[in-house]
Amino acid sequence: MQHSKNIAIVGTGLVGSLLALHLRKKGHNITVFDRRPDVRTVEFSGRSINLAMSNRGWKALREAGIEEKVRELAIPLYQRAMHVNNSPVYFQKYGQEGEAIYSISRGVLNRKMIDLAEAAGAEFRFEEKVWDVDLAEAKLYTGESEKGNWQEYNFDLIFGADGAFSRVRHKMQRQSRFNYSQHFVDVGYKELRIAANADGSHKLDKNSFHIWPRGRFMLIAMPNLDGSFTCTLFLPFEGEHSFETISSEAKAEKFFSEFFPDIKDEIYNLTSDFFKNPTSALVTVKCFPWTYYDKIALVGDAAHAVVPFYGQGMNAGFEDISELSRLETEFGDDWEQIFANYQALRKPNADAIAELSHRNFLEMSSKTADQKFLLRKKIEKHFAEKHPESWLPVYSRVTFSESPYAEALELGDKQAAIMDKVMKLPGIEEKWNTAEVEQEILKLLSGS
Amino acid sequence: MQHSKNIAIVGTGLVGSLLALHLRKKGHNITVFDRRPDVRTVEFSGRSINLAMSNRGWKALREAGIEEKVRELAIPLYQRAMHVNNSPVYFQKYGQEGEAIYSISRGVLNRKMIDLAEAAGAEFRFEEKVWDVDLAEAKLYTGESEKGNWQEYNFDLIFGADGAFSRVRHKMQRQSRFNYSQHFVDVGYKELRIAANADGSHKLDKNSFHIWPRGRFMLIAMPNLDGSFTCTLFLPFEGEHSFETISSEAKAEKFFSEFFPDIKDEIYNLTSDFFKNPTSALVTVKCFPWTYYDKIALVGDAAHAVVPFYGQGMNAGFEDISELSRLETEFGDDWEQIFANYQALRKPNADAIAELSHRNFLEMSSKTADQKFLLRKKIEKHFAEKHPESWLPVYSRVTFSESPYAEALELGDKQAAIMDKVMKLPGIEEKWNTAEVEQEILKLLSGS
Repeated sequence: MQHSKNIAIVGTGLVGSLLALHLRKKGHNITVFDRRPDVRTVEFSGRSINLAMSNRGWKALREAGIEEKVRELAIPLYQRAMHVNNSPVYFQKYGQEGEAIYSISRGVLNRKMIDLAEAAGAEFRFEEKVWDVDLAEAKLYTGESEKGNWQEYNFDLIFGADGAFSRVRHKMQRQSRFNYSQHFVDVGYKELRIAANADGSHKLDKNSFHIWPRGRFMLIAMPNLDGSFTCTLFLPFEGEHSFETISSEAKAEKFFSEFFPDIKDEIYNLTSDFFKNPTSALVTVKCFPWTYYDKIALVGDAAHAVVPFYGQGMNAGFEDISELSRLETEFGDDWEQIFANYQALRKPNADAIAELSHRNFLEMSSKTADQKFLLRKKIEKHFAEKHPESWLPVYSRVTFSESPYAEALELGDKQAAIMDKVMKLPGIEEKWNTAEVEQEILKLLSGS
Repeated sequence: MQHSKNIAIVGTGLVGSLLALHLRKKGHNITVFDRRPDVRTVEFSGRSINLAMSNRGWKALREAGIEEKVRELAIPLYQRAMHVNNSPVYFQKYGQEGEAIYSISRGVLNRKMIDLAEAAGAEFRFEEKVWDVDLAEAKLYTGESEKGNWQEYNFDLIFGADGAFSRVRHKMQRQSRFNYSQHFVDVGYKELRIAANADGSHKLDKNSFHIWPRGRFMLIAMPNLDGSFTCTLFLPFEGEHSFETISSEAKAEKFFSEFFPDIKDEIYNLTSDFFKNPTSALVTVKCFPWTYYDKIALVGDAAHAVVPFYGQGMNAGFEDISELSRLETEFGDDWEQIFANYQALRKPNADAIAELSHRNFLEMSSKTADQKFLLRKKIEKHFAEKHPESWLPVYSRVTFSESPYAEALELGDKQAAIMDKVMKLPGIEEKWNTAEVEQEILKLLSGS
């Protein structure tokens, strides 16, 4: 028999809202705090990257009973559309027939999920900043300012769903033996926008993830329901082509003319948005433990922020909630067991998706122009298409399955070791698509 | 022409005191803050490990003009004394004739250095807690409590010498793009004591670093001037033999009887001290940047705390001060240049000593009982003694030279690659000290 708990969630983002829904379904009293204003009442920030919902995310939404409502906000992307200068656009399918990732505006989804959690009975307290947390007593302290008067709240449990710069985690970090790291990459990002056509249709194929790869930097575009695209420019902070050197509207104009001539004129208010919208940094956060006895747990980015180059940040956070929900069904009222199992099961997978995401960043920033690397990818693809039963690409494992991220990383390391050997075959450049190479890969796969 | 600056140092530990001396020598006005009471007026904490001053530390003290005064507090240790149960003690020399590390009580040294810095004109403000730092304006805010009234101080420069859990760094950590990690090992430590004989003499050889290695745990003892030894027990927090399982005086008694029978009765108030003295954790802290324009710099543990298994924590911090002093001579008033060069030069060396210290921890906890490992060490030692000009042990490079830590790490990696090959020679167990193996190492060293 399970008892209803008074539970606080700090953070009204996607993971916090989803957790509120799950916990309401189990009959708990839920209060959700956020230092920011209600996202339903304000303009979007101009600093978000569109979300790519994939299988793990959909599973968690299904369990919360809101999959269909979110499907209405999503546009399936079946393929990458690669835009290389002076060449026709070419397409790369993501997976098998029908497999897709789903583009959703972060703001649109967040508003919807808060609506749904509120309708399910969760109380939302916006513009109420949490300044301190008593971990052992599950107390929260909120107030206008760090030095002003604080309001004290007592809960049975507190969840930190307050993102990469989590205040709840910040308090846990002061404990001895709390392992923590934050690592920034030297590339930042900026949101831009391609407006809809006059008739509301999309200016580019709406079922593709559009990429303009340029080696150390790239532009991406993901569709919205209103016909627009949310674009993201990933660019080094410093160096020859960088946010530092693009210091005037004229320089921004020149940069886009040189590197993105085919899309430059479609970007809405390009040069003014470039300077109006903030330049954001990208961080990987790792920490452990994620929980404090039966009182406190971190979820989503607060526990494991990753760089966005695998499109799995939100999906990984949603999977935390799936797992917590499953464990609550298994262990009932025993929150110490739930939390202990939650962090033991999730931590290796969070580390794995952090590693996979960082590797994708390194690939993007250093290898996309490397002929050896492109050949390697081509051989893998060729083989996987002929032998889908023996070579599931890591991307598919991560994106279209629900098997643990840690297994995908392990599989990927095995495949990489095989490909290292294949790439050393004499004359591989010429014979890459021959039966000889195919047989060699099969032999390596069988471990002989 | 150099201008006198108003400089704050946060932290009156060893590195803070040494920095105060160096900066006074250059003619700056110095105020040193510490949240703790004056270490000269209170009992020592019961949580320190004796210091092992080596060449880098002495160099920095010499430059500050206080080497001789500190020599009076130090006892040279020329060798390790290994205490293995049921065997006679055996000795391992640290280096060449006359090379030694020097045992100094942290508390005794700290008191002396504060005396010297105060005599040189630095102002010390104890029990004054820094709660906030304005990085851009080099302002400090101190007060009784985090929420009480604060006193504001204006400085030209602020140094954070406030240790592994630095408040100054904590403020820098809130900036975007600040990389940071804190990693705890699963072993903690506890201070114990061997009292002097009635006549004031030492109970063990006073010119040795005494070690009782026991695989996953160990006891060490370092001499003090008063005839006593400061002992440190390194022991896992959890597991079969751990701080967790030694939960009563009877269990402590049994543990020491079983594993340290030869020294147990010499440890002063063993079982009561075991529970009176705190169990402390060991952390590696890495971060970057270390400086903020020409306003703020981190030094010592605040920038790079390491685990103590190389005996280099203080030496590395003192070397920071040597380097800052040298750069001030080179760049005069240009603190932005001084700080930029300081962090660029010191960061790779700090990372290297962190890595070397962590490797020593891993060696200690997993390899000391491994026959292959012991043979490997024996071969290295044998070869180094025959060819001192071509095989300087990494330990000597780190401890008895002033060449950069990063070079010692690189040298060590090269030696390790050679030893990996040597250990794979067929029959190495039998022929380890033959001319054949010697020739093989010489060949590998010459790169042929």
